[in-house]
Amino acid sequence: MYETFWTTDPVKLLRAGDGFTLSETATDARPGFDRGKKQAAAALTEGSAALRELQEKLFAAGTVGERKQVLLVLQAMDTAGKGGIVSHVVRAVDPNGVKYVAFKAPTPVELAHDFLWRVAKRVPAAGEFGVFDRSHYEDVLIARVHELAPPKEIERRYDAINRFERELVETGTAIVKVMLHISKDEQKKRLASRLERDDKHWKYNPADVDERMRWDDYQTAFQRMFERTSTDVAPWYVVPADRKWYARLAVQHLLIDALQGMDLDWPEVDYDIEKEKKRLAAS
Amino acid sequence: MYETFWTTDPVKLLRAGDGFTLSETATDARPGFDRGKKQAAAALTEGSAALRELQEKLFAAGTVGERKQVLLVLQAMDTAGKGGIVSHVVRAVDPNGVKYVAFKAPTPVELAHDFLWRVAKRVPAAGEFGVFDRSHYEDVLIARVHELAPPKEIERRYDAINRFERELVETGTAIVKVMLHISKDEQKKRLASRLERDDKHWKYNPADVDERMRWDDYQTAFQRMFERTSTDVAPWYVVPADRKWYARLAVQHLLIDALQGMDLDWPEVDYDIEKEKKRLAAS
Repeated sequence: MYETFWTTDPVKLLRAGDGFTLSETATDARPGFDRGKKQAAAALTEGSAALRELQEKLFAAGTVGERKQVLLVLQAMDTAGKGGIVSHVVRAVDPNGVKYVAFKAPTPVELAHDFLWRVAKRVPAAGEFGVFDRSHYEDVLIARVHELAPPKEIERRYDAINRFERELVETGTAIVKVMLHISKDEQKKRLASRLERDDKHWKYNPADVDERMRWDDYQTAFQRMFERTSTDVAPWYVVPADRKWYARLAVQHLLIDALQGMDLDWPEVDYDIEKEKKRLAAS
Repeated sequence: MYETFWTTDPVKLLRAGDGFTLSETATDARPGFDRGKKQAAAALTEGSAALRELQEKLFAAGTVGERKQVLLVLQAMDTAGKGGIVSHVVRAVDPNGVKYVAFKAPTPVELAHDFLWRVAKRVPAAGEFGVFDRSHYEDVLIARVHELAPPKEIERRYDAINRFERELVETGTAIVKVMLHISKDEQKKRLASRLERDDKHWKYNPADVDERMRWDDYQTAFQRMFERTSTDVAPWYVVPADRKWYARLAVQHLLIDALQGMDLDWPEVDYDIEKEKKRLAAS
């Protein structure tokens, strides 16, 4: 491992493998990390430097046409901290190389196409670090809970997603799928805090409580999603997120691990270095 | 001014107004800042907090449909530090709200349209903080130097740009146009350093020296660009950039100043706060 502070590799601990059960998974644990919040801040800084260097190598490889890209997929109940992952973990890397996409409710044009149509257009290009804030998984989560599509179509989508993601992996994409897992109580606290402060009111939406009332249905939809789409090439990671600092550290590690697995190095250049030194000196 | 460390507002000092002459403008000065590199780092941190809060208000306003957006336009000779502005200044704000666009050589499809076609599609939406890393100004810079369009067409473009930008300003966009100004010697040093280190070779492109050989032509094209497109609604700022730390601090200030001029505040919400507190408590 790149970082020095993990007791056990979270990649193993957090993976939603065979027999994974969401309802038995703690939301306030900190698998692989035996220290507290303060040390986590220092650890995050350490990891940021590693992540930044790896991302720069990824970007550099893209400039010479190597087909390597990363895609972070974030799914969670409201308030679980997706935004915090973006602003605390992803922010560490050079914004030039980041392709951030927030998927909202589909537009009429998007609805007139298959659910993957709008997603396929937004996958990261060579060298890019893509971030999906929500994703094609909404089409088996909210779509399932609100019955926006018939059960048969939802079932078809799991397979379509697996084929789609296999294609991405085969063409050089490392996919890191993260579900931020919070408790229902923790969500209540976080929503309440948005109602307490003037500068947070805009982050609150009454519809959030409507969704909250379907908590159990969502947990069931997540469970089914893990069972059907946590594949060998693109597994799901379920990250306990009641402690924001743990979730950020864990996601950072999943990204570092994915990038380390890509065999990245500074690219060979196709110009003559000595000749260029002379040209430059004469200019 | 929001920040405490400026001796004179750089907005006034850096503006390319009537009679501005690029060739008489220092590349190694630090207008408005009488301290050194070390203090600049602390100053940048202070400014980052301010910029972050203003950007969050801009983003919040966007969520309730207010048509306010910011557009940072970056132009410069190679190695002048555009990337550093993005990674050191823009990185401070929430990546969720940033829309970063790097304009490369136009594609055949883009070339089959007017030069503004691809630009108009990428302007920031309500609440967004847009960054153009190169821009429609390439069409009067490289296009002029390499005679990619007839002189008459280049002249037409200045007017077209002014109309285009006026439209953006009238529809709520604050445009901050920055030219990072380095000396020819400083560029030589920076290009040479890319040739010295294995991990920097990929950043070097032999074509950079070809462009360097047209230095004077580019300076003339910049001068003409300032004369024709530094308008009241969207003036140019010429930022001395031989010292990277000064350039970053100055651009940060230009952004803070632009955002402060937008009269931003946390948006009023259209739900009943007390009623929502009760609904949430019961959920």
